[in-house]
Amino acid sequence: MRYPPLQASLRAHALAARGFMPENEGDALHDAAMLGADSVPGAPFVEVGSYCGRSTVWLGGAARACGRTLFAVDHHFGSEENQPGWEWHDESLVDPRTGRMDTLPHFRATIVDAGLTAEVVTVVGDSPTVARGWTTPLAFLFIDGGHGVEPATLDHDLWTPHVAPGGILAIHDVFPDPADGGRPPYENIYLPALAGGRLERGDLQVRVAARHRHGEET
Amino acid sequence: MRYPPLQASLRAHALAARGFMPENEGDALHDAAMLGADSVPGAPFVEVGSYCGRSTVWLGGAARACGRTLFAVDHHFGSEENQPGWEWHDESLVDPRTGRMDTLPHFRATIVDAGLTAEVVTVVGDSPTVARGWTTPLAFLFIDGGHGVEPATLDHDLWTPHVAPGGILAIHDVFPDPADGGRPPYENIYLPALAGGRLERGDLQVRVAARHRHGEET
Repeated sequence: MRYPPLQASLRAHALAARGFMPENEGDALHDAAMLGADSVPGAPFVEVGSYCGRSTVWLGGAARACGRTLFAVDHHFGSEENQPGWEWHDESLVDPRTGRMDTLPHFRATIVDAGLTAEVVTVVGDSPTVARGWTTPLAFLFIDGGHGVEPATLDHDLWTPHVAPGGILAIHDVFPDPADGGRPPYENIYLPALAGGRLERGDLQVRVAARHRHGEET
Repeated sequence: MRYPPLQASLRAHALAARGFMPENEGDALHDAAMLGADSVPGAPFVEVGSYCGRSTVWLGGAARACGRTLFAVDHHFGSEENQPGWEWHDESLVDPRTGRMDTLPHFRATIVDAGLTAEVVTVVGDSPTVARGWTTPLAFLFIDGGHGVEPATLDHDLWTPHVAPGGILAIHDVFPDPADGGRPPYENIYLPALAGGRLERGDLQVRVAARHRHGEET
């Protein structure tokens, strides 16, 4: 790690929030966001896929530490893999009024309780819709949205062009070995990002994705 | 009115939502947003100050009718004039868990029930914070945020430069006569927008604000 880690009071909120982000990966995200901020003065962060705000607290803490804003994008109706009948479904996230998943109240509580409402802008909408209206260059982009082929491909195609030169692209659940997990984050985001020539031009970096899964140090 | 009005099923949702938007002004907003969309191909709309989503339904309906996206910006903790002890406070909007106003659940319910989640992106954050991260040119901008001098001035300074040439700026509660209401929307948004030379250059229009309060037809 290059930077001071997330402060203890925020860490407690991150660990208390529902979600799938292991602590060591949260710490790596925080460090990568700080590095992106150092590389791209003034530019904001975007997180695609916030769920109940667990990873958002690490990234919001980084945003606070370096005076940036994190835009946390999620429609909050749950990804495909969070729906009833799928492995990652949590029935307590269903809104009894509509019968549909709604993680927004849980996300809102996480951010309010962590005291991060000044640093985290909650963007409630479908990722491609938000991306099509977005033009601001980013210091840091974390993609952890829908893990199917279509959402992963759209997140790659519509969001990665917004990473500023020197900024960092981080991708969650990148598994080079199929035995470790699903393919789309690796095949439809990570590999195309590398193949797109952006890495060679130095304006798109996937160091976090690489480090998460290969144990590399950046 | 130049365009077909908001469809009846959406109108029922608008009128059922809590808020301060009279029906005739909602209709004028809808028409102005359609005109802005015609003038600026492809560009999105922004609403600053959404409260419980009443005006948002009119603007979301316009967005649907012309294939655009409305970004609806509000921190959802209530403006100064919505806080306890002020004229426009509604105690039923206080979150019992935090003791603080939170209009987000009400806004979310309005948008979900109206079926506008595809067209309306909910942006939860302080207006100046969101504006400082925003760079996309707008077909239509509606300012109805905090009505004090400071928030009105910031909304003018930070948001109006994003209205694209030919786009429309609409401002709520513009009162040329002090007997009619508070000064900041008129003095700190409307007059500076006119004085800024933008109207003369044809790239900033305040037709809705003028029409609302003077009965003019655009």
